[in-house]
Amino acid sequence: MKKKPIHITIVGAGLVGSLLSIYLRKRGYEISVYDRRFDMRSNMLGGGRSINMALSNRGLRALEEVGLASHLKGNAVPMNGRMIHDTQGNLTFQPYGKQGQFINSISRSDLNMFLINEAEKLGVNFFFEHKCLEVNLEKTELKFQNFADTISHQADLIIGADGAFSSVRGALQVSDRFEYTQTYIEHGYKELRIPSAEDGTFQMEKEALHIWPRESYMLIALPNSDATFTCTLFFPFEGNPSFQKLSSPEKIRTFFESSFPDAAKLMPTIAEDFRDNPTSSLVTIRCFPWFKNRTMLIGDAAHGIVPFFGQGMNSGFEDCRILNDLLNNHEDNWEAILPIFQQLRKPNADAIAQLALDNFVEMRDLVGDPDFLLQKKIEARLHELHPEKWIPLYSMVTFHDTLSYAEALRIGQQQKEIMEKVMRTPSIEKVWASLDFNEIANQLTSQR
Amino acid sequence: MKKKPIHITIVGAGLVGSLLSIYLRKRGYEISVYDRRFDMRSNMLGGGRSINMALSNRGLRALEEVGLASHLKGNAVPMNGRMIHDTQGNLTFQPYGKQGQFINSISRSDLNMFLINEAEKLGVNFFFEHKCLEVNLEKTELKFQNFADTISHQADLIIGADGAFSSVRGALQVSDRFEYTQTYIEHGYKELRIPSAEDGTFQMEKEALHIWPRESYMLIALPNSDATFTCTLFFPFEGNPSFQKLSSPEKIRTFFESSFPDAAKLMPTIAEDFRDNPTSSLVTIRCFPWFKNRTMLIGDAAHGIVPFFGQGMNSGFEDCRILNDLLNNHEDNWEAILPIFQQLRKPNADAIAQLALDNFVEMRDLVGDPDFLLQKKIEARLHELHPEKWIPLYSMVTFHDTLSYAEALRIGQQQKEIMEKVMRTPSIEKVWASLDFNEIANQLTSQR
Repeated sequence: MKKKPIHITIVGAGLVGSLLSIYLRKRGYEISVYDRRFDMRSNMLGGGRSINMALSNRGLRALEEVGLASHLKGNAVPMNGRMIHDTQGNLTFQPYGKQGQFINSISRSDLNMFLINEAEKLGVNFFFEHKCLEVNLEKTELKFQNFADTISHQADLIIGADGAFSSVRGALQVSDRFEYTQTYIEHGYKELRIPSAEDGTFQMEKEALHIWPRESYMLIALPNSDATFTCTLFFPFEGNPSFQKLSSPEKIRTFFESSFPDAAKLMPTIAEDFRDNPTSSLVTIRCFPWFKNRTMLIGDAAHGIVPFFGQGMNSGFEDCRILNDLLNNHEDNWEAILPIFQQLRKPNADAIAQLALDNFVEMRDLVGDPDFLLQKKIEARLHELHPEKWIPLYSMVTFHDTLSYAEALRIGQQQKEIMEKVMRTPSIEKVWASLDFNEIANQLTSQR
Repeated sequence: MKKKPIHITIVGAGLVGSLLSIYLRKRGYEISVYDRRFDMRSNMLGGGRSINMALSNRGLRALEEVGLASHLKGNAVPMNGRMIHDTQGNLTFQPYGKQGQFINSISRSDLNMFLINEAEKLGVNFFFEHKCLEVNLEKTELKFQNFADTISHQADLIIGADGAFSSVRGALQVSDRFEYTQTYIEHGYKELRIPSAEDGTFQMEKEALHIWPRESYMLIALPNSDATFTCTLFFPFEGNPSFQKLSSPEKIRTFFESSFPDAAKLMPTIAEDFRDNPTSSLVTIRCFPWFKNRTMLIGDAAHGIVPFFGQGMNSGFEDCRILNDLLNNHEDNWEAILPIFQQLRKPNADAIAQLALDNFVEMRDLVGDPDFLLQKKIEARLHELHPEKWIPLYSMVTFHDTLSYAEALRIGQQQKEIMEKVMRTPSIEKVWASLDFNEIANQLTSQR
């Protein structure tokens, strides 16, 4: 790659592809973005397959950098913590962080359309209904199918931002010595809905992420700015209970009424929604390397993760920010940047993939466990007394964008070991407030 | 799959595809075999990318079942054990098993052409230079490219026997919830050659698999029936030494002369061969499930493994035999057979994949280690005294086709633990002959 690329082709007009096109257009590149789907702005079919996004600090920081964070006002709903619903309908609120720390519930399609519009204003060219058929890694050439036509396209640089089932990665996969894993969890998900009240207000606490943890499965609900909630059932494909078993409207209703009684009351069309909405699977994608010659991967195409830490979009936006930093620091010398980018980001991608899998267990099971809640309380106190020394794992990942995912994972593992010892203190539930918090926090510091 | 399939389409005319076509043709099916490559019978280009095959009991049993084992006479060279070459050119012979137990060195292309010829005699139809472009898993339809033509083909059942980079598996990979991993080791391989002597005889011991173990790399040589040896260098891609570093004829010759002095003398064209022959990589493929609707995978397409246990072809042939057994036992009810086949074979595929990776360490490093050799001697004695109770791992895998790979792996792990304890006996090198072999063998028995 002797000459500086002028024309960059991005495959995928999703959240990461669109944001990246803005970053790169601002640097002066000619950008074409191709996407296999129709233009969602002209042809909005709406939801059915996507949980709401939880935008947090890492993603927000990238939006701020390109000057677009103000879009959140009026379009995002802040969520200050988890609202846990037990089987009796009792509620427990667990704040996500300190006062003033929250994550943002935002519609995937709203944010995506906004980013595409902003990119177009800057002069990015979008080509929808162009399915990527082939990527020639030697010639940096693409073939697209647009209805009956096959279109060849020559690029200076190709960036695959085409998601977990990336076509661009498909070309890398058949190149020599490409490490690749796709692995599914045993749960799938189905999107459901809680409408607004008749007077147009929220039917549950608005500024929270609602969770109905049931050990082997869970329901969650995120607020929308139109006072509805988008709910997602994470549920085993097989076994009992499972998607396979809920095979009739009666079984569905009975199951929801016994497992999520308070939610069921707010979901009058549950049986129909359950039948009509697709059941989707949950994949983790790991691969390496992330580039070959002048073709690279970014976002889910490089590192598809499960949604349980709310970091899929945030990690992809962070990819864009880090790539832009590297372009700043290396005078747009892509040949130098590509190996550094993957070397920097791969350990963080692996870390957030693991953290996301771990957090499913926390969300569906532990958040309903008294010992776990006590541990959270102790950690919150540690953080209060030693705000720089002891930052809970959730906060490191969600609110501390200066800590990498890999560091968060490493420190989180140390914290876990320390807390396991602390929780073995006799009568911990009675004596916890008089623990030597200084000594506990210092165990961590000495290890860092 | 209500009706019995009549027309079975096999993709891949390699060793497994050809043998499978024979098995199935004998059951009365109409069989078409498609392969992307030219017909090697009419257009023999020869080697360059394939180590010789080591046919052992599992593969042999399948050949016997279809009445084709007699082909080995005159075409295979028996190898009774390993001949270890140290850096001084000193030789140590390690028998593979008991007297009369050996593996068979056979040319991949010879055996493949023989199987294709036999299949054709039975009425199997082969279509070469047909590249599989697409598999429709819903309609059991294929698209092939034959030069400028695209050919659609409807099958009753599709079997992907198209190797580690299977196109048929490509279709399964993009179907929902398909688990898939491709992972490479850090070594590649290059095929080299030791010619026959001027009088047409072998230049080294004929009935052995020669190994030059050098810890981080190794050279091996297998005898051919024309008195030449096919050598394979297994060598790191990067680091020192590595393929990357051997960048000139001088460096190549110097390296061979210092690392493999006795072999180097027998390889007059080493620098040219090294330059002209390709460097290939070594992949392990793991996936699941092995079928969807009426399309299934077999052999390397389902479970590509590294070659270090000499079981790639043998495990594929065993797949064919087990599938044929199931067809016998279930009256050719494929709908019943497909789930049973994968359930039976997947644990064995995983086991041989692991055993093959482990055996690389043994071949390139341990076989040169005195402790390891002593351990082998003790195990040989154990086997001699308790032939049914204690069968060394190599023998279980290679000579005992009634033990599954998964059982061999499990028993081998127990043996390893027992032998680690035995090897910690003070002055084991002096006292080993007076160990209580009965007691040692019984430790294993009680665990089984």
